[in-house]
Amino acid sequence: MKALVIGGCGFIGSHVVDNLLANGVSVRVLDRRPEMYRPPLPGVEYVMCDLSDTAQIFEALVGVDAVIHLASTTVPATSNMDPAADITGNLIAMVRLLEVMREANVKKMVYLSSGGTVYGVPQMDPVPENHPLNPISSYGIVKIAIENYLFMEHQLHGLQHVVLRASNPYGPRQGHTGTQGIIGTYLWKLARGEQIEVWGDGSVVRDYIHVSDLAGLCHTALTSDVSGVFNAGSSEGASVNDIVGHIRNTVGGDITPAYKPGRGFDVPRVVLDVTKAKTQLGWQKQTTLGQGIEDTWAWVQEQSG
Amino acid sequence: MKALVIGGCGFIGSHVVDNLLANGVSVRVLDRRPEMYRPPLPGVEYVMCDLSDTAQIFEALVGVDAVIHLASTTVPATSNMDPAADITGNLIAMVRLLEVMREANVKKMVYLSSGGTVYGVPQMDPVPENHPLNPISSYGIVKIAIENYLFMEHQLHGLQHVVLRASNPYGPRQGHTGTQGIIGTYLWKLARGEQIEVWGDGSVVRDYIHVSDLAGLCHTALTSDVSGVFNAGSSEGASVNDIVGHIRNTVGGDITPAYKPGRGFDVPRVVLDVTKAKTQLGWQKQTTLGQGIEDTWAWVQEQSG
Repeated sequence: MKALVIGGCGFIGSHVVDNLLANGVSVRVLDRRPEMYRPPLPGVEYVMCDLSDTAQIFEALVGVDAVIHLASTTVPATSNMDPAADITGNLIAMVRLLEVMREANVKKMVYLSSGGTVYGVPQMDPVPENHPLNPISSYGIVKIAIENYLFMEHQLHGLQHVVLRASNPYGPRQGHTGTQGIIGTYLWKLARGEQIEVWGDGSVVRDYIHVSDLAGLCHTALTSDVSGVFNAGSSEGASVNDIVGHIRNTVGGDITPAYKPGRGFDVPRVVLDVTKAKTQLGWQKQTTLGQGIEDTWAWVQEQSG
Repeated sequence: MKALVIGGCGFIGSHVVDNLLANGVSVRVLDRRPEMYRPPLPGVEYVMCDLSDTAQIFEALVGVDAVIHLASTTVPATSNMDPAADITGNLIAMVRLLEVMREANVKKMVYLSSGGTVYGVPQMDPVPENHPLNPISSYGIVKIAIENYLFMEHQLHGLQHVVLRASNPYGPRQGHTGTQGIIGTYLWKLARGEQIEVWGDGSVVRDYIHVSDLAGLCHTALTSDVSGVFNAGSSEGASVNDIVGHIRNTVGGDITPAYKPGRGFDVPRVVLDVTKAKTQLGWQKQTTLGQGIEDTWAWVQEQSG
C-alpha cells in the first residue's frame, strides 16, 4: 500500500510517517516546507508544493492508494482574524483536492478534524461524536464543512473516508511558538529557564492525546474498511494544574507558574468520548500522560542541549 | 425601521418587499438585476451591485437597522457542479458581509436557509430543527456553514439573527426555467399547452409554503427579539400526485402527466416541523395549498395572456 501524507512534514505528520514506515506502508509526503527538526527520511518521496497547485497534486496522487490529510493553513486561535482566508486555504483547497482524487481514482481519505472546536461548548461529558455541532470559531466551522464534503463524496462517489476529531495532541517535535498546545510550550519555556504562565486558576480541563497514539490511529483508520467520524482523544480529562504537576514530577526543581487573569473564551471542560474508535476500529491508546510528558521532556532537552 | 433586502428583486424577495412596505418598514433593495416581472416599486431604494462589492455594500448599509438576506448564486440541483464557486459566491460573500455589517454597526440579520437540503435524508417525520445535519449537496453544506458563522457572530459580537430554513416556496413571480420548483414549472407548462412530467410514480412528498406566508415570517422574524434557527414550512406533506390533483381542480381540462423514471437522489418524504416558529415567533401560515395554486395560476394566466 502507498499513502500520500499531506502535511507529512508537520508535528503530527512526522509521527504518522514514522508509523506508516514501521508498518511497511510506502509513503509520499506533500507539504509546503521540509520537517523542522529532522533531515528528509530515507525511503520517503517528498513533494514540496501548496495545496492550491492542482497540477502538482494530481501528479503526487499517481500510484497512491489513499490520502492522509493533516494540513491546515490556520490554527483555532487565529482563524477568526480572517475567515475568508481560512475558507479559501482549507475548504476550497479540500473540494479541489476531492475533485483531483476523483480524477486520479484514489478512493480513500483519512482526514484530521478537530474535537476541540466542532462541538462548541459541551452539553455532555465526555462528548460523543453525535453531540450537536455549535462551533464558535472559523476553524471549527470550516472543519465541519470539510467533514460534510467528505460525507457527500462518500454518498455520491463512494469515497471511503475516516474523519478523526482529535483532542489536544502533544509530544516530541511539537512547535514551541506558543500556538500549538501548552505541554510543548511549558517544556520549552522551562528548558530556556523561563517561568511558565497559567491563564485563570488552572482548573480548565482538556483531553490530551500523545502524538504517537494519534499516529497509530491514523494507520488503523488507513487499513480499516470502516467509513465515518471518530473522536481521537484519551477519554480522560487533565486540568492545567494536573499538567503542571506532571511536569514538576518530570522536570524537578522549583516550578511555580505565574497565574494570569482567565480568558473569557476558555470553556471549563472538554473531554472526548472515544468509545467509537475503540469498538469500531479496535484502537487503544498506549501512552499515559505522565509517560508522554517524560518522553516530550527528553526530546526538548535533546534539542536544547 | 429601515431594512436592506439582499436579493429583494428575486421571487421571494419581491414578496418580502411587498410585505415590509405594507407593514410600514422602509426598504432598500440590493440585487444584481431588477425584478423580472414588475417595474421598480415607488418608495423603494434600489442598489444594483454584486455581493462581492464590499464598498457598495457598506454604503448600502448606511441608515439601515437590519438586513434580510435572501440571495444565493446557486440552486441545490447545480451546486455540486462547482462547489468552489458555490463556496466563493455564497460563504465567502457572507463572512465579508458580516464584517461590513460590524463596521456599519448593523446588529440584526434575517437569513434564508434551506429546510430541504441541510438535514439530508430525514430520520424523523416531521423534521424538527435539532435533527442531525447530513447534507448531500454543496448547497446544503454551504447553508450550514453560513448558519454557523451567524451563530458565531451572535456569540462573539452580539448579532441578532434569525435563520429561516424554508421548505419549498411557491407562488406568483416564481421563475419558469424549471429549477425553482414544480408548481410554477407545471403551471407555466400548462399555460403554454405543454404536457407536464412526473419523475417516478408521483409519490415523493414535500412540504410547500406559499411565498406570501414565507414573506410574512420574514417580517415577523425582523420585528422579533428572538435569535435562532426556525423551520419555515407548512408541517404538511403533499405528494407530486397531490399537486397534480390540485392543479387539475384549478386549471380544469384533461391533465395527464408523462411519467418518467424516478431520480435516485429524490428522498421519499421531507416535511418540516414548524412548531418552533409557531410557539416562539407566533407565526401561522395563512394560505392552503389549494388556494395558493389558484392564486399562482391566476398570475401565470395574466402573464401569458
